[in-house]
Amino acid sequence: MRTRKILLTENEIPDHWYNIMADMPNKPLPPLHPGTKEPIGPEALAPLFPMELIKQEVSAEKWVPIPDPVRDVYTMWRPTPLYRAYGLEKALDTPAKIYYKYEGVSPAGSHKPNTAVPQAYYNKMEGVKRITTETGAGQWGSALAFACNLFDIECEVYMVKISYDQKPYRKLMMNTWGAQVYASPTNLTQAGRQILAADPNSPGSLGIAISEAVERAATDEQTKYALGSVLNHVLMHQSIIGLEAIKQLEKAGDMPDVVVAPFGGGSNFAGIAFPFLRLNFEEGRTIRCIAAEPASCPKLTRGVFRYDFGDTVGMTPLLPMYTLGHNFVPAPIHAGGLRYHGAGVIVSQLLKDKLIEARAYDQLDCFEAGVLFARSEGIIPAPEATHALVTVLEEANAAREAGESRTILFNLCGHGHFDLKAYEDYFAQKLVKHEVTSAEIEASLAMLDTPLID
Amino acid sequence: MRTRKILLTENEIPDHWYNIMADMPNKPLPPLHPGTKEPIGPEALAPLFPMELIKQEVSAEKWVPIPDPVRDVYTMWRPTPLYRAYGLEKALDTPAKIYYKYEGVSPAGSHKPNTAVPQAYYNKMEGVKRITTETGAGQWGSALAFACNLFDIECEVYMVKISYDQKPYRKLMMNTWGAQVYASPTNLTQAGRQILAADPNSPGSLGIAISEAVERAATDEQTKYALGSVLNHVLMHQSIIGLEAIKQLEKAGDMPDVVVAPFGGGSNFAGIAFPFLRLNFEEGRTIRCIAAEPASCPKLTRGVFRYDFGDTVGMTPLLPMYTLGHNFVPAPIHAGGLRYHGAGVIVSQLLKDKLIEARAYDQLDCFEAGVLFARSEGIIPAPEATHALVTVLEEANAAREAGESRTILFNLCGHGHFDLKAYEDYFAQKLVKHEVTSAEIEASLAMLDTPLID
Repeated sequence: MRTRKILLTENEIPDHWYNIMADMPNKPLPPLHPGTKEPIGPEALAPLFPMELIKQEVSAEKWVPIPDPVRDVYTMWRPTPLYRAYGLEKALDTPAKIYYKYEGVSPAGSHKPNTAVPQAYYNKMEGVKRITTETGAGQWGSALAFACNLFDIECEVYMVKISYDQKPYRKLMMNTWGAQVYASPTNLTQAGRQILAADPNSPGSLGIAISEAVERAATDEQTKYALGSVLNHVLMHQSIIGLEAIKQLEKAGDMPDVVVAPFGGGSNFAGIAFPFLRLNFEEGRTIRCIAAEPASCPKLTRGVFRYDFGDTVGMTPLLPMYTLGHNFVPAPIHAGGLRYHGAGVIVSQLLKDKLIEARAYDQLDCFEAGVLFARSEGIIPAPEATHALVTVLEEANAAREAGESRTILFNLCGHGHFDLKAYEDYFAQKLVKHEVTSAEIEASLAMLDTPLID
Repeated sequence: MRTRKILLTENEIPDHWYNIMADMPNKPLPPLHPGTKEPIGPEALAPLFPMELIKQEVSAEKWVPIPDPVRDVYTMWRPTPLYRAYGLEKALDTPAKIYYKYEGVSPAGSHKPNTAVPQAYYNKMEGVKRITTETGAGQWGSALAFACNLFDIECEVYMVKISYDQKPYRKLMMNTWGAQVYASPTNLTQAGRQILAADPNSPGSLGIAISEAVERAATDEQTKYALGSVLNHVLMHQSIIGLEAIKQLEKAGDMPDVVVAPFGGGSNFAGIAFPFLRLNFEEGRTIRCIAAEPASCPKLTRGVFRYDFGDTVGMTPLLPMYTLGHNFVPAPIHAGGLRYHGAGVIVSQLLKDKLIEARAYDQLDCFEAGVLFARSEGIIPAPEATHALVTVLEEANAAREAGESRTILFNLCGHGHFDLKAYEDYFAQKLVKHEVTSAEIEASLAMLDTPLID
C-alpha cells in the first residue's frame, strides 16, 4: 500500500529553531525611532516584550535552543504530518509530486501556536502575569489564548469589533480556553475611548486593536504584549515547520524544487521556506521559495521597499519593509490573516535580494482551488491557505505542460472549519474580484513621509 | 522527554475489522417483520443496502477483511493518535493513567467516516449511483458526504429542518464536498409532502428525515440508503478504533482496566470497546467497558429490553433492543448525536448479559468536564464526547480515593469546532438539567405494542 503521510516521532521534533539572520548575505537595516528617525536598539522594546524574546529578535545565532517545556507542549500536536497529495495530483493529472505540511492539526487549528507557546513560556519565566494582543478574524487570538491557558497566564484579546460581532466562534474558542476577549474599540484604554468619543459606533480596525493592546502592556508593569507575525522571533519560532518537513522529505527520499506558502506578515511563509533557504545558502541548492499573497493586498508584488510603521496609527518603530503604506485599507476579503499592509523585515530583505519570489491572486481563484483541494484531499482549507494552492496549481500545470517531473511542497497552514461562511458565499457567487488599482496604491504611498531606502 | 502521543504507521492500520458476533455467548434474537412480526432474513434489506453490507450485517465471521481502497482512504487520517492525557491527569491529581483515542482528526471531525468510507465503497462496487441518508446535527451527514465525494457517488442528505436552519456550518461542509442537502420535510417525497400538508411549518425530526431518505432509496433502483450507527455492519467498521488502540497500548506497555465511550446508537462505544471485549472473551481478561449516555435519553440505564422499531414512524424491522419507546422525544440537549431512543441490537444483548456497563449524565456535568478537558489537554471536545469524560473523571477520582493506580481509556470521538455555541450557552448559564422523569418514560413505553422478550 502506498504511504500517504510521512510521520515523525515526538523525539524527532527539532530541538533548535533556525535563525535565518545568520545566513543572510545582506542583513536587514535597523529599525528607526518613530519620532527621531534614528536607529534604535533592542532596549526600546523592553516595555512590551520579555528580555528573552528581545534577545531572539536581534540574535545572530544560527540555532536557538527550544526549551524542553515548549517542546513538551509541541507534542500536543507536533510533529505535524507531511502529506503526499495523491488525490490532488490525480485531479490535476500532473507528473509533479505534491506534498503538503498540515498545520491545521493544532488545537487552535493553524500554525499560530508554534510561536504563541514559546511566547507564553518566556513571559511566564520572567514573571509576567498577563499578555495582551489584538486579533482580526481570530486565528492568532485563539492560538495565544490556548498557549496562555497552558502556562497559567491571563490573556486579554482586543478583537476588531466587526469580527467580534460577525465571527462569534473564534471568540467562543478563546473563552473556552479562559481568555478575556473585548470588542475593540473599548472603554478600557485611552486609545479606545478616543475613538469612541469620535464615533461611538466605530466598527474597529486592526490598527485600533493594536493600539489598545500595546497601551495596556505599556502602562502596566505586569502586562506584556505579543505579536503573531512580522517580527524576527515570531518567524524563527515558525521555522519548526520547515525543519520537520526536511526530515520528513528525507525519509521519503525526496527534496522540493519549489516551496510555497500564503503570505500575510511573513510567519507562515518563513516557517516553511527559511529552512529550505538554508539548504540554498549552505549546500548551493536552488530551491525556489514562493510567497502567495492576495491581489487585494499585494505588498510584495506591487508595494515599495522603504521604512514604514508596523501599525496604522504610527506608534511602532519604523521598519524597512515592502509596504503599501500603513494607511492602506485592504478590501474585506475572507482571508483575514493576509490583510496586512507590510511584510516582515527579513522577508522584505530576501525579496529585495531576489532570494525569494512572490505572486498575487484574486480570492475567486483561491476559493476555486480550495474547493478542488477539499474534494480531492478531503481537508477543507482555510481561505489563507488557498492562496498557496493557486501557486501549487500553476506549478503543477507547468510541469504537465513541460512534460517533466517537479516536486512541490506547500504549507497547509490551517483548516477552514470557522470559514465555511466564506465557502458559502463562494458557492452563492457572492464573492467579487478585489484587485487593487495602481491609483489606489499610489494614493496610499503618497501619504507616507517615512524615510526612503537608497 | 516523555511521550504524549503513541503513533502507528500507515502499514499498521488493521487489515480486518473485528466482528464481535462470532464471540458473543448469546447471539442477538432475529429482527421481525414490522407487519407480520415474523423473523425476517437478510433479503428484506436488499432494496436499501448493497449485498456486501447485508452479508456483513448477518455475518458470523470473526474477522472481515478491509478492502485495500478503503484502507487507502483511511490513510487520509488514520491511524489516529492515542494520547496519554498528562494534562488531565495533573488537573485531576489522580494516580490513574488516562489515555484517549482521538478520532477528531478525520476531515469530517469525528469517527463517522470509519463506516461512511466502506459504505460508499461497497455501494460504488455494486454500481449504485446515489446514496441517501438523514442527519440531525450533521456529523453523520458530513461523513457520508466526504466519503461519497471520494468514490464519485451522489450524496443526498435529509437534514432535520430545525438543525438545517440553526447549524449552517455542517450543511456548508457537506456542500463543500459536493453533497445535496435538503431541509426535511421536503416536497420531494411522499412522506415529506404528507407532513407538510398537515403542518407547512414543521421543524422536522430525525424520524421524518429517515422516512424521506428510506423512501427515496426504496423507490429508485440506482439509489441506496446508508445508516451511521445502530446496525451490526456499522459497529463492525468502527472496530478499527479499538484494534488500533490495542496496538498502541501494547507499544506503551499498557492495558486498560476501564474502556469508556459516549453512547448514542452504539457505533462510537462499539468501535473502541468491542476489540477489548474480545480480549475478555479470548484471554479471560476483565476489562470493564462503560457506555456513557445522556440522562435525558437513558435507554441503557432506564429503558426496557424488548422489540421496537428503529425509526419513529415504524417503517423499519422490529429489533430486540434496550429502548425508551420509538415515540420517545428526548430533550433538545446539545449532544445531538446521542438523542436516539434505542440501542443497537448487539450492544443491547451485551448489556442484557451484563458484559458491559452503562451510566447516564446530565449535560451540565458533561460541559463542566468538557471545559476542564479543553483547558488541560487543549482539544475542545464535541458535546457527545464530554459524556465519556464524566465517566473518566469518576474513575480517576475513585482511583485517587482508593489510592491505587488504574488505567483508563476513552474515545474522544470528535472535536467541538461546530458546537461552540453550546459552550457559549454553558458559560452563560443558559443550559438546564434535562433528567427525564419515570412517568415520562412509562408513558412512552405504554404506547408500545411491539413484542416483548421473555
